Amino acid sequence: MSLLVVGSVALDSIETPFGKRREILGGSATYFSISASFFTGVRLVAVVGADFPKRYAQKLEERGVSLEGLELKKGGRTFRWKGRYEYDMNAAHTIFTKLNVFKNFSPRIPDEYRKTPYVFLANIDPDLQLAVLKKVLAPRLVACDSMNFWITNKSKALKKLLGKIDLFFLNDSEARLISGEVNLMKAAKYVFSLGPQRIIIKRGDSGALFMTRQGGCFSAPAHLMETIKDPTGAGDSFAGGFMGYLGRTNDRGDKAVRKAVIYGTVMASFCVQDFGPERLLTLKPADIKKRFDDYKKNTCL
Amino acid sequence: MSLLVVGSVALDSIETPFGKRREILGGSATYFSISASFFTGVRLVAVVGADFPKRYAQKLEERGVSLEGLELKKGGRTFRWKGRYEYDMNAAHTIFTKLNVFKNFSPRIPDEYRKTPYVFLANIDPDLQLAVLKKVLAPRLVACDSMNFWITNKSKALKKLLGKIDLFFLNDSEARLISGEVNLMKAAKYVFSLGPQRIIIKRGDSGALFMTRQGGCFSAPAHLMETIKDPTGAGDSFAGGFMGYLGRTNDRGDKAVRKAVIYGTVMASFCVQDFGPERLLTLKPADIKKRFDDYKKNTCL
Repeated sequence: MSLLVVGSVALDSIETPFGKRREILGGSATYFSISASFFTGVRLVAVVGADFPKRYAQKLEERGVSLEGLELKKGGRTFRWKGRYEYDMNAAHTIFTKLNVFKNFSPRIPDEYRKTPYVFLANIDPDLQLAVLKKVLAPRLVACDSMNFWITNKSKALKKLLGKIDLFFLNDSEARLISGEVNLMKAAKYVFSLGPQRIIIKRGDSGALFMTRQGGCFSAPAHLMETIKDPTGAGDSFAGGFMGYLGRTNDRGDKAVRKAVIYGTVMASFCVQDFGPERLLTLKPADIKKRFDDYKKNTCL
Repeated sequence: MSLLVVGSVALDSIETPFGKRREILGGSATYFSISASFFTGVRLVAVVGADFPKRYAQKLEERGVSLEGLELKKGGRTFRWKGRYEYDMNAAHTIFTKLNVFKNFSPRIPDEYRKTPYVFLANIDPDLQLAVLKKVLAPRLVACDSMNFWITNKSKALKKLLGKIDLFFLNDSEARLISGEVNLMKAAKYVFSLGPQRIIIKRGDSGALFMTRQGGCFSAPAHLMETIKDPTGAGDSFAGGFMGYLGRTNDRGDKAVRKAVIYGTVMASFCVQDFGPERLLTLKPADIKKRFDDYKKNTCL
């Protein structure tokens, strides 16, 4: 079953100890879409400016991503982000964020998108996430992501959103920030009190935790990697693999969810191997299958 | 099959955000012995001073630990350590270390100990670890632990030791320190070049990595805990569970090693639930079985 994603499509400039790139294809919805496209059909809602390179849109189209919902704002400039990572690549240092066309974005959902059964509200202003949610009709599963900026500055809108979604993706520092708890189990309890039935706490190279309000838990270590060039987009690639697998199987049972967590981990591991979405864009389905099998071998009793 | 451990028996004073304790039973060999005693017979080699409380020795005896190798130095004072942990309990801040009777310790191995098939050289001066290794006769498996102090100050002796052992337990910061590599896979490669066939990198609440020189790997997340009062001894409790399980089964095959990593994780998780070895000392075998099963449920596909 197909997926709808709303989030950012951006031009990213990135520096890591392993090199740098200028104005490459980026954004939360971009990484999510490319990653999920290996599993199921993806419909993207976002906005770009007139300066957005056609070849970047082509890359998404080549992955089969539907761009009917990608608005092109005449005269506008595309969202830009510049960041730097040190050797410990768990945290990005933002050099600048230029919202540009996202400043006054009002998401337009094409009619045929409105019945998409799986919905991912990638990291954008929670008011925009809420606006999109209003326009979709009886989805089977709604997931969202957020970030420290919205937790701090749009707490009310974010909490309203969390009362309306099924699954919340957040990283460990966001879980601690939103809850005021250092311990992740205590942080998770607080997040459940805000509404979601399920959460996934992403912990960078310490792996991911899937938890349910009923006390269910699946703890998955990260895939061990000798080469990590650029962690940008890892979280959205994780969400893309996770949601993509659920969409493909249309199964939300415990076993399917565990496999989805592993597919999320696998897609994130490919993402970080090269700058931006470069590695994701050259992936073959057999690469994914092989890494899934390797991962199982390295983690299962 | 029985285990021989040489290491420290100490009086620890500990402060954490959850309380403090003064001169409680501690030391690397203590935690290892108590943990391993739930799996197989343990023979302890260490030294204490005349001030070592009899009731502490009794606690070890009640766990069936053989104390024939525990030297009582007349007129000497027991090794003391004082440390503090902040909310992020992954690193201890040492307030003081008083070697006392360990300053001139020359390990005496009782004759019947010399044929013990499984040997654990817990964290002490690598020269002492080497001295013990000379006295044991054809062990089936020799493992050792160390710490940043010896990596920095006794690098030559430690490297000599690593050329003679099978399995090296170290934590992530020690792996980075000894190798000069941030990436743990690269760090592991360097450690293999020093001699060990197998290593276990302990990563605190990020779990543990078992790796073999041939490229085998088992990555185990930590057990999720809502209450962590005191992380002192977690690494040695891990080693005790791991080596204890191998000793009990006398099986060093891949499946046994994976189960041993989980038993190590389980014993470490009990250790951190209360101060010092308090929780370990009240454990029942059924508690271990239950947590092993819970852990499998939370981590296996």
